[in-house]
Amino acid sequence: MEKQNKKITSRDVDFAKWYTDIVSSAKLADYSSVKGCITIEPNGYAIWEKMQQILDKEFKKLGHVNCQMPLLIPESLLKKETDLVEGFAPEVAWVTSGGQKELEERLCIRPTSETLFCDYYKNHVKSYRDLPKLYNQWCNVLRWEHETRPFLRSREFLWQEGHTIHATDEEARREVNEMMDVYYRFHHDILAIPSIKGIKTEKEKFSGAVYTLTNEALMYNGIALQAGTSHYFGQKFSQAYDVKFTNKDNKEEYVYQTSWGTTTRMIGELIMVHSDDYGLVLPPRIAPRQVVIIPIGNSCDVHALARKINDLLSSNDITSYIDDSEKSPGFKFAEAEVNGIPIRIEIGTRDLLENKITFVRRDTREKIVESVDINIEKYVKELLDKIQIDMYNKALERRNKLTFVAHNLSDIENILNTQPGFIHAMWCGDVSCENKIKDIKGCKSRCIIDESPIDDKCVCCGKKAKHHVVWAIQY
Amino acid sequence: MEKQNKKITSRDVDFAKWYTDIVSSAKLADYSSVKGCITIEPNGYAIWEKMQQILDKEFKKLGHVNCQMPLLIPESLLKKETDLVEGFAPEVAWVTSGGQKELEERLCIRPTSETLFCDYYKNHVKSYRDLPKLYNQWCNVLRWEHETRPFLRSREFLWQEGHTIHATDEEARREVNEMMDVYYRFHHDILAIPSIKGIKTEKEKFSGAVYTLTNEALMYNGIALQAGTSHYFGQKFSQAYDVKFTNKDNKEEYVYQTSWGTTTRMIGELIMVHSDDYGLVLPPRIAPRQVVIIPIGNSCDVHALARKINDLLSSNDITSYIDDSEKSPGFKFAEAEVNGIPIRIEIGTRDLLENKITFVRRDTREKIVESVDINIEKYVKELLDKIQIDMYNKALERRNKLTFVAHNLSDIENILNTQPGFIHAMWCGDVSCENKIKDIKGCKSRCIIDESPIDDKCVCCGKKAKHHVVWAIQY
Repeated sequence: MEKQNKKITSRDVDFAKWYTDIVSSAKLADYSSVKGCITIEPNGYAIWEKMQQILDKEFKKLGHVNCQMPLLIPESLLKKETDLVEGFAPEVAWVTSGGQKELEERLCIRPTSETLFCDYYKNHVKSYRDLPKLYNQWCNVLRWEHETRPFLRSREFLWQEGHTIHATDEEARREVNEMMDVYYRFHHDILAIPSIKGIKTEKEKFSGAVYTLTNEALMYNGIALQAGTSHYFGQKFSQAYDVKFTNKDNKEEYVYQTSWGTTTRMIGELIMVHSDDYGLVLPPRIAPRQVVIIPIGNSCDVHALARKINDLLSSNDITSYIDDSEKSPGFKFAEAEVNGIPIRIEIGTRDLLENKITFVRRDTREKIVESVDINIEKYVKELLDKIQIDMYNKALERRNKLTFVAHNLSDIENILNTQPGFIHAMWCGDVSCENKIKDIKGCKSRCIIDESPIDDKCVCCGKKAKHHVVWAIQY
Repeated sequence: MEKQNKKITSRDVDFAKWYTDIVSSAKLADYSSVKGCITIEPNGYAIWEKMQQILDKEFKKLGHVNCQMPLLIPESLLKKETDLVEGFAPEVAWVTSGGQKELEERLCIRPTSETLFCDYYKNHVKSYRDLPKLYNQWCNVLRWEHETRPFLRSREFLWQEGHTIHATDEEARREVNEMMDVYYRFHHDILAIPSIKGIKTEKEKFSGAVYTLTNEALMYNGIALQAGTSHYFGQKFSQAYDVKFTNKDNKEEYVYQTSWGTTTRMIGELIMVHSDDYGLVLPPRIAPRQVVIIPIGNSCDVHALARKINDLLSSNDITSYIDDSEKSPGFKFAEAEVNGIPIRIEIGTRDLLENKITFVRRDTREKIVESVDINIEKYVKELLDKIQIDMYNKALERRNKLTFVAHNLSDIENILNTQPGFIHAMWCGDVSCENKIKDIKGCKSRCIIDESPIDDKCVCCGKKAKHHVVWAIQY
């Protein structure tokens, strides 16, 4: 028999240890023999599959098609766009031999695929009639990170990278916004995470981008996580890679380009926003299994009812399963809890004699005893919706509690010394101020947001403020 | 406007050229900047997505769960199983630097993941109660091939690799069979390819396997293609990687292991079995888009009917779309044809006045004029089924036509000089005979099949025959 879950460190005692305890107790991922690379275990991969299904449908609804570029990029190709290569050169892995021979040119494992898409576009676009091209790919990428942490930062990770090219600047900018909205809505509606969105500062934008939009979430401990970015490249890459088209006026022009991505890091994000000291807590809309039915004892009536409820729920698009393994009920309860199954239904012999069954919410751990005669399918649907909304509101409450306003540098310092979180403060736009703020415990600008100003003056230098910025320590 | 499809070389004139013409005309894949690696374009990737959906459902029905192992394998880990490393060493790519530093140990890009799974199993299996473990992963792998061809043989390819471990030899062998049956049924029922299955000879089995089952298809030109293998490892790997469990008798034992895989090469297989000189031909059950509706002219009635039919088909699980682009009808017809859309529906103003619409089958190119008053949804469903069956029968007829029996070496030679195909011949089991047959134009044993003997004697040496073998030249 698999052994009982090991004790999970308390979230309020040691957040980092609590996080890795959840990852291993809920069997989401394991360390591998390759430093900095993880094995995504079935429980973790099932969450990624559900993320893929939901996002892929959204992408396709907006006209995107999937494709697959090579894993490897020749060094000469990578080097054509200087900003990108400077941004990524320190963190790529190089293949130098293949088939027992030294390669003439070394190949890097893709850290991202802008260069490969540009190389492809070049041969497939001639006229404005060929535009837009709306591509996406689901794949693995490699970045040679030094400090790694399961899901949040690992050398290899899985992601989707959207790449599009357009005939006009306006249309491309619209795409950048639209895809950021997809990520933002996905966070709010599906992951129950009240993220914020905005534009990155020059310093924090993606290497090679004209600008970067970002979706930023706040973890339970007040540290921020970037989860989803959408970049506008204008004609920077298309000039470097010579991707031209004939426009409506019959003139040659470089295409306008975007890219946008989300990664398996969102699994880590889900943990750090919603989970508790008993294990994983998953919002129903992203939970691969929404309901577990646990029959207690060997009575035929109990097992017949379990099957009946399971069939009923399954035929109504609720993913439920019966845990009829040999383990003890107590073990099963704990396992369902650590795995974050949103609703647990317990059916016991004695309860059944009294015509009762028990529902247990994972998020609040509340037990609710109901008559077996209720409309179970309707009841479960409504309870799943209620859990989804309650989880969002709880996360929102936490985020609001950890959102602060700073009027000067000592405000920032005080906040970060007491309880880190999202810090709203005005900024003049000068990178030297941004750097000074970063000197305070690594507090970085998350994004410039479109909200009314707090002050007239920059939080750092006191000169005229240009932007309302959210700052935080980041993962 | 995109230019009209370039002329496709005739299949009977130059099969290899015809093949690459189909790949490029139907926009399935393109060459990339990395030698031997392709870009899978949206039309090709959509076929792979459909293959994934169908196979993944089958795997999950049988209790398998998906996971994701790392891309990289440390050299020391790879070397633990000597047969495997000898089999793959000549064709792996090595990562030797990461993050601007030489690595202490070089890492190979996975050519297959048995070693990684073993490394994982070791820490996750203790008792027979933890077994079986039924894993699968969808990923990319790299093999440094020298002669490459889009889909059929490329340095990087996409595949699924199933990996399972079991408490008993019997159960593991059953798994090997069951998964081969999944591949075989997938070929017959979905790809409309009348493949054969059997066991590989010692010489042709997978490096490190106890035995290998294989699914073998015959291409239009009489060359064989291996498409789907299922391996039994017994305890070979579990001994090398020390994967033990406590069995029911409370004794330590090594686990019994299997692996099985299919790849994007099946896209090439589909082309080489079904397509013709006009482009791709796809069996309806694997076609990402089953019906295209082409309105001719600008009449409102025509466009209203197109939309009505499209809605009707879409709401009945038929994937249809309207081509209402600016291109000419002739161009649209040709494009639908080269892309292999199984049914084309043409709606013209004049026809509509006579209450008629035209259906065109891609497989036979037959035009069928029908009244608009027929039950279109039922009609299309039945026609798709008919195309599926007809395509299977046509492929079966071709396979039978290209299936021969040989009683001696000169029979084999004559067959291969006239028209290659599947050659049934008896074999004594001796590798020297197998080698002699291979000397005839590279004719290899495809598999030992479970059919009654043709002769008493080996086709090569004349000694007592042990096996009924199918031989062929292979891709």
